[in-house]
Amino acid sequence: MELTETIETILAHRSVRTYRSESLSEAHLQLLTEAMRRGPSSSALQNYTVILITEQDLKEQLARLCGNQAYIAQCPLFIVTCVDLRRVEKAALARDYPYRASDLRILLSATEDVAIAVQNASLAAQSLGLATVMIGGVMNGSREIAALLGLPPRVAPLLGLCVGYSDEDPKVIPPRPRLPKEVVFHRERYQLSEREEERLLDRHDQEVISSGFYHARHIPFDELFPAASVDPVGPDGYGWTEHVARKQARLWWEGATEKLWEDFEAMGLRLRRE
Amino acid sequence: MELTETIETILAHRSVRTYRSESLSEAHLQLLTEAMRRGPSSSALQNYTVILITEQDLKEQLARLCGNQAYIAQCPLFIVTCVDLRRVEKAALARDYPYRASDLRILLSATEDVAIAVQNASLAAQSLGLATVMIGGVMNGSREIAALLGLPPRVAPLLGLCVGYSDEDPKVIPPRPRLPKEVVFHRERYQLSEREEERLLDRHDQEVISSGFYHARHIPFDELFPAASVDPVGPDGYGWTEHVARKQARLWWEGATEKLWEDFEAMGLRLRRE
Repeated sequence: MELTETIETILAHRSVRTYRSESLSEAHLQLLTEAMRRGPSSSALQNYTVILITEQDLKEQLARLCGNQAYIAQCPLFIVTCVDLRRVEKAALARDYPYRASDLRILLSATEDVAIAVQNASLAAQSLGLATVMIGGVMNGSREIAALLGLPPRVAPLLGLCVGYSDEDPKVIPPRPRLPKEVVFHRERYQLSEREEERLLDRHDQEVISSGFYHARHIPFDELFPAASVDPVGPDGYGWTEHVARKQARLWWEGATEKLWEDFEAMGLRLRRE
Repeated sequence: MELTETIETILAHRSVRTYRSESLSEAHLQLLTEAMRRGPSSSALQNYTVILITEQDLKEQLARLCGNQAYIAQCPLFIVTCVDLRRVEKAALARDYPYRASDLRILLSATEDVAIAVQNASLAAQSLGLATVMIGGVMNGSREIAALLGLPPRVAPLLGLCVGYSDEDPKVIPPRPRLPKEVVFHRERYQLSEREEERLLDRHDQEVISSGFYHARHIPFDELFPAASVDPVGPDGYGWTEHVARKQARLWWEGATEKLWEDFEAMGLRLRRE
């Protein structure tokens, strides 16, 4: 089957974290906006709000609030997308209807809407020869970013997108490896035994270790156990499994989990179960 | 600026709810799988599991569990995507690391991963001349679908995608209208006054009403207030605002909200704040 340009763009995706200083044109911004706008939206609710940011000072503050990600300040356009639980609630209350919806459910479908819009912008940009990287770290500074951008209550920054001209050599940074297809994709029903899953993940770890992908990307052991003086795992044992296990075990989570709940409550999301 | 084929595919998006019986080829399924797989994933965690379903009996049961959406049974391929909070937790525990991550945070980034993967599949399919519609209603039958497909604990069905050959005349069903750009998209900071927002939404409502888009799509008033015998809003008052207000006010929510929390708990998601 012949590949379409769309499929080629999708398959060629890689995240870029070094940008040239060159600005984007107004036509670029309009096209990316239109691409986001045409994404399918759950029940056509369009529960999101988007801020396109080119001001250097704002980008620098956002880079810091997203956990010191310098490329947010470096790229010419940073797009902050927010779940918006305010607009449709306001519509209901203004017409004297009760708001009976569940914030958890609306948050999840709004998160889908947001991610679809961001992926549309990312693919549109990549098809034009621009580079992008998504910034999940927006969630870490959600409340502070909402204050910085002057957002109304119940509008919560969730996901960002850097857009610009790549200053990376694609030959130097290969696309990130993916899990074996058989681990993630199934036909008709889930049919993977635990034993087979372990075998596939072991093989994947060996491939990733041989490729050297995680060589300069180790999460330091003392981010998990500050008292530890040696890292028990060397480069020959550090594959995908070790990496994601460490991601989930970082002490950082303890503050971050608490902050996420506090941020959502402060922004007016009602996520506690009654 | 010249549009790329990718951008044209994005802008031409419309959801299709009537399919011909013709099957997809194995090459189609492989391409869609590869398109989903190449989507960016938060921290490369790839917290999702995907089931591709072509068996008629399964599709019929799924159509019912998603709230009687007949096109799920009609389309040749239905893709069920699930947030997977099991795989990385297992990786951490198998290596004797504590699992410190927050299920709320992981659920949100997994939801982003899932939506990005589904949008990739949808755009890839549309670029090949196929039609799609996303099915948010998978969330309504999440626990039952998990049981039907034999999913392990902590893997929760979230979003579906119908794929097939359209049996609709694109001239008959126009693309769904979108909110005015100025309501959703902002430059540098949020800068829309409540007054201006109301004016823009009023104008949008008038346009939608004139277009007749919601003419055959009214949510019956007695789904909100079963005792009411007349609907106080006629076709000339039923625009986007009225429609989304009714969506949020349906009595359906009372059971659905409770079910979503119960389903997530039954599937092993730990979303309660401690």
